[in-house]
Amino acid sequence: MLGRTYEKQACSAARALEIAGERWSLMILRNAAFGGMTRFKDFQQSLDIATNILAKRLESFVQDGLMTTSKGDSEHMEYHLTPKGLDFKEVIIALTQWGDKWACTDGPPIAFEHEGCGGRIEQHLHCRSCQTTVKAKEVIARKTKAMALYQKKLRA
Amino acid sequence: MLGRTYEKQACSAARALEIAGERWSLMILRNAAFGGMTRFKDFQQSLDIATNILAKRLESFVQDGLMTTSKGDSEHMEYHLTPKGLDFKEVIIALTQWGDKWACTDGPPIAFEHEGCGGRIEQHLHCRSCQTTVKAKEVIARKTKAMALYQKKLRA
Repeated sequence: MLGRTYEKQACSAARALEIAGERWSLMILRNAAFGGMTRFKDFQQSLDIATNILAKRLESFVQDGLMTTSKGDSEHMEYHLTPKGLDFKEVIIALTQWGDKWACTDGPPIAFEHEGCGGRIEQHLHCRSCQTTVKAKEVIARKTKAMALYQKKLRA
Repeated sequence: MLGRTYEKQACSAARALEIAGERWSLMILRNAAFGGMTRFKDFQQSLDIATNILAKRLESFVQDGLMTTSKGDSEHMEYHLTPKGLDFKEVIIALTQWGDKWACTDGPPIAFEHEGCGGRIEQHLHCRSCQTTVKAKEVIARKTKAMALYQKKLRA
């Protein structure tokens, strides 16, 4: 597990980062979610990551319910994403869109496609009320009633 | 600056994480983007972060073009997000959605709203071809021609 330095942050983004908030973690999740990787050796070779770091990350994913393990056909241990782990695809797509736009000189190396029709995937911010696609600059954050509860707990 | 261990990763998500791939960085960007914070002291107090770490993060944001600095009314240095930095809002929203769903027991502490109409914001995956909202499990990643270029460069 990563340190719990962020416990005082009553914020779901902070909690998500607590679980997968380290760059190797997200690269492992990416290779599992979009590369279909399941084996230790494949993660290790594709990422050129130290085996002790990889082992720790996979162990914490299993512990946090992002992955389950099973013995594959050839008796190799396999790591499979759970729905909780698969949901990180949206975070990876958001990061990739940002990187494509701001940190990419030769064009996006990866394209996200709709498996059904082959169409290009874009991530949109959608307003449930006016049913329009909204720009990031039009989005504000508001504290909810749940925030008051968290803050009370933190003070306790 | 963070280490460049991920240089070999021809992936925009990896590049995004290289710039803001550390939990404090994203918390700082969050407080700037959604909390309207601009001053060192406000970031420091709200996050309870060590001043040397905060100073390094802000410096690297300025260096990487995510923030610019200016002297505010009271002669305090102010840090303002550039469009490149503001675009991280989408990553923060994606992380928050994941955390709200999977790492939150008492309900989401923060709600994202459309500034125009107050409607609730949701992040959707949209297919440009069939014009539908797509589930994450229907999204696949395909290598582009640009990937071949990156791989050639890495081998050179």
